[in-house]
Amino acid sequence: MLQRTYENQNCSIARTLELVGERWSLLIVRDVLLGVRRFDQFQASLGIARNVLSTRLARLFDAGILERVRYQERPERFEYRLTEGGRELSVPLLALMHWGDRHLAPGGPPRIAEHTGCGGQVVEQLVCSECGSTLAPGEVHTRRAS
Amino acid sequence: MLQRTYENQNCSIARTLELVGERWSLLIVRDVLLGVRRFDQFQASLGIARNVLSTRLARLFDAGILERVRYQERPERFEYRLTEGGRELSVPLLALMHWGDRHLAPGGPPRIAEHTGCGGQVVEQLVCSECGSTLAPGEVHTRRAS
Repeated sequence: MLQRTYENQNCSIARTLELVGERWSLLIVRDVLLGVRRFDQFQASLGIARNVLSTRLARLFDAGILERVRYQERPERFEYRLTEGGRELSVPLLALMHWGDRHLAPGGPPRIAEHTGCGGQVVEQLVCSECGSTLAPGEVHTRRAS
Repeated sequence: MLQRTYENQNCSIARTLELVGERWSLLIVRDVLLGVRRFDQFQASLGIARNVLSTRLARLFDAGILERVRYQERPERFEYRLTEGGRELSVPLLALMHWGDRHLAPGGPPRIAEHTGCGGQVVEQLVCSECGSTLAPGEVHTRRAS
């Protein structure tokens, strides 16, 4: 297991990265969102060592991000699904994807996020829950909770 | 430098994580958003080895996420600021923070994101650019760009 050196940071970003900031972890979550379910499919998609994949899956399961469904008894084999909490990681993942689309994809976005209902493109927005305005990053600050 | 093993992934999440997925990198960006500017301040905030910090800052500078402003000539010393592109990382960072607030902060959120204009709490939303609906993660899918 990775050394948990973010531990002294009282910060929800640090705590989240402790769970999903390990190399490959967020790409595993991405793959599950894309419909990947089984160990060999993850391996084919990511091309990483089986022991690394195995460790990452176990950690995401322990963290309550993935759940396991047995699909074979002998030998025992599991499929992976996202829990409801795991599925909520699609918001930061889409935000990372769109950042990369804007800054690292000169040939255009490799994937498009769409509203399943109407097929329109999906964007993530910062919104003020008080006045309802859509905000630019420069209009947002954070403060310590009192 | 970290081995760039995400390279065969034609994916904007993977490309973004190649730049900011290294341990501590996103926490450095967070710190700059919070007003941290100088090497010793980062070190005090993060408590990491100086050589690791130095490598991470150089990589974020090379990636166009941070810019450097010299504040002392002999010896030469620099402050770090976010570029416009770097500042846009506040969207995925806020999304990671709010995910952690919901799932990993039983005592309540350590920090609150506020609209500087009116003081209202800021949330990130998935919005359909076609029909204008605010979407749950389950209403969004991605497809390969054609």
